[in-house]
Amino acid sequence: MEHLLEELLSDRIKATPPSFIRSILKTASNPEIISFAGGLPNPVSFPQEELLVSMERIVRTYGSSLFQYSITAGLPELRQYIADRYNQKFGLHLSIDNILITTGSQQALDLISKVLLNKGDGVIVEKPSYLGAIQAFSQYQPNFYPVELTESGLNIEHLQAALQNDVKFIYTIPDFQNPTGLTYSAENRDRIYEILKEQDIFLVEDDPYGDLRFEGERLPYIGAGRLPNSILLGTFSKTVTPGMRTGFIISENTELLKYISVAKEASDLHTNIFSQYLIWDYLEHNDYDAHIAQIRKLYQTQAQFMMDAMDRYFPKSVQYTRPHGGMFLWVTLPEGISALSLFPKALEKKIAFVPGDPFYIGMKDTNTMRLNYTNADSETIDEGIHRLGDLLKDMIL
Amino acid sequence: MEHLLEELLSDRIKATPPSFIRSILKTASNPEIISFAGGLPNPVSFPQEELLVSMERIVRTYGSSLFQYSITAGLPELRQYIADRYNQKFGLHLSIDNILITTGSQQALDLISKVLLNKGDGVIVEKPSYLGAIQAFSQYQPNFYPVELTESGLNIEHLQAALQNDVKFIYTIPDFQNPTGLTYSAENRDRIYEILKEQDIFLVEDDPYGDLRFEGERLPYIGAGRLPNSILLGTFSKTVTPGMRTGFIISENTELLKYISVAKEASDLHTNIFSQYLIWDYLEHNDYDAHIAQIRKLYQTQAQFMMDAMDRYFPKSVQYTRPHGGMFLWVTLPEGISALSLFPKALEKKIAFVPGDPFYIGMKDTNTMRLNYTNADSETIDEGIHRLGDLLKDMIL
Repeated sequence: MEHLLEELLSDRIKATPPSFIRSILKTASNPEIISFAGGLPNPVSFPQEELLVSMERIVRTYGSSLFQYSITAGLPELRQYIADRYNQKFGLHLSIDNILITTGSQQALDLISKVLLNKGDGVIVEKPSYLGAIQAFSQYQPNFYPVELTESGLNIEHLQAALQNDVKFIYTIPDFQNPTGLTYSAENRDRIYEILKEQDIFLVEDDPYGDLRFEGERLPYIGAGRLPNSILLGTFSKTVTPGMRTGFIISENTELLKYISVAKEASDLHTNIFSQYLIWDYLEHNDYDAHIAQIRKLYQTQAQFMMDAMDRYFPKSVQYTRPHGGMFLWVTLPEGISALSLFPKALEKKIAFVPGDPFYIGMKDTNTMRLNYTNADSETIDEGIHRLGDLLKDMIL
Repeated sequence: MEHLLEELLSDRIKATPPSFIRSILKTASNPEIISFAGGLPNPVSFPQEELLVSMERIVRTYGSSLFQYSITAGLPELRQYIADRYNQKFGLHLSIDNILITTGSQQALDLISKVLLNKGDGVIVEKPSYLGAIQAFSQYQPNFYPVELTESGLNIEHLQAALQNDVKFIYTIPDFQNPTGLTYSAENRDRIYEILKEQDIFLVEDDPYGDLRFEGERLPYIGAGRLPNSILLGTFSKTVTPGMRTGFIISENTELLKYISVAKEASDLHTNIFSQYLIWDYLEHNDYDAHIAQIRKLYQTQAQFMMDAMDRYFPKSVQYTRPHGGMFLWVTLPEGISALSLFPKALEKKIAFVPGDPFYIGMKDTNTMRLNYTNADSETIDEGIHRLGDLLKDMIL
């Protein structure tokens, strides 16, 4: 059967890498291991008591509508809430027809590539990029054109070169990028906008972390509100609950959203309607921004704690980014040091991180790694960075 | 932009038909219209009060685990419950490694085709088949080989002919098939098993309605428990809640499940974990079989009521199936009468059904239609069938 299976599998699935993060989840969930590998929000970000109150209220108020089949685009009340919030915060002009609810942002990545990509079509991604996005896109066997991500955003020359290819869309995370924690500067955003407005391609701005800024001012989107071919992704995973898989796609291109809706219908009919009612009711009855402010404060403390520990325990030749928000730090080791080969040694010392390799297209033994600071307390962060620092000293000296 | 969009779309999405049912959902949800078009369970099948009790219990007991990211294969406790139930009821030998939780059965159809189908690969379907399955498979541009569905199951000669092609899997709904309401006989199942055990293809048995049998004895599965390449689909949508999108794939081929798991990870990371805990807790703390018995009794009454009304109001030349369970009846009009052209006239009389066409591959103006009897009370069924009968008499006489 194994030989047979190989013959029966699609080329697509053979081209899709399993997620490194999820394959080490079991190891990393060993309570003895200090893990900076995941991308888990701190449970403090789940308003459990308030959600329980909302559950009782919606069951009493809406009864069977919570449990029945529902429409593909998502709960109109929740879509209206999202439209209103983005209009107010970012001066956009959205109606519910511009919003489509997805089963987490991961599904948005799948649906966008499902609707746009033929085998061999071009996709521009950041170098490095989010591994879950690389995985989603890989299912459709595109050609990837990675563009270097710098401290201030995309390398513009590389972007212009990449655009010489037959490209369907460009995928970016302009705020507190995953994995690097970097944020595109206002100037860089404007440069990208000026270039893309002349191009017949889609711009995907993935914004799961924008609300989690703990330093500096929020910057405008690159495309949302000014590029007709803009696709903006949002989620409640980092500010309410990831377990309920509720994300959304925002686009002024309602024709595109109709095709995405057909793909969604064929993929899972609609997103869990109970959870949509629940999140909407929670948002309507609580001070969401005050809740987000709490999360932000906690993550700022934890990020600062991790950076201080790195200053204390890491060799000076090791560099790292200083994020203004979000959930991740990006560490660069001296040239020639493979973070992947460090990984098993770190596990022996009961410390886990994500080596940089799966965030790149086809690169091996890179000298980079991603660290998450949102899901460990100060003491654990100190102990983990201490252990990692000792290992690095052994390796580098 | 519209011209541009056409150029940017994938061939795949151009080949995917929008669902007829979902495109008329808005029309059919007009409260003045009597709709037999949907496939909605009766809200009596949602144990709302019990689910609310379970919600309170799981929030108190499991806290943040309900709201956090979780593993792709699904909640181990729920998978164990499913394994135990199928082992007990059908003499299978399943462990949790044989179960993968999906975001509704629709996602199972998407993932199976994602993992198995290259463009042009063969898929055998019933003629007629479930339109949501045709839609899911179409995304991967296969060649369809429809095999006639008879009163006793698949036409064996047609099946053998279809198997001469390069086929990856065969998709069947052996119990109370959607759309026809037909059930494969025990003999037909055995014939299919004997044929398929010599074949290197997968058999997908979709079983959303098996528990809803109101007449006769449950028959064994065709492949589950005896074909190594068997894939069995189940769901809680018809017996607990469809709104929470919780289905599952059962297979003894754990290698295949690993690939499906990678595809699921890339598609939505994992199914809503709150809902998985909720359904599991509900199942553990209530008499599930007693609940199902209630649904069964109601549907039997409603099916009988619809059949009686059809005997009363339909012209004698109109034929229909007599289901032993499930949710649907299948009506065959005299040759040459198009159910699709009847549809707008029916809407004028404020009555909706699904014309047979979308259940076939590339057929137009067929003389068939699907009626759903689970989501209307006796009076509404009588009135709706009366109106439809009057229309049919006008058309046929």
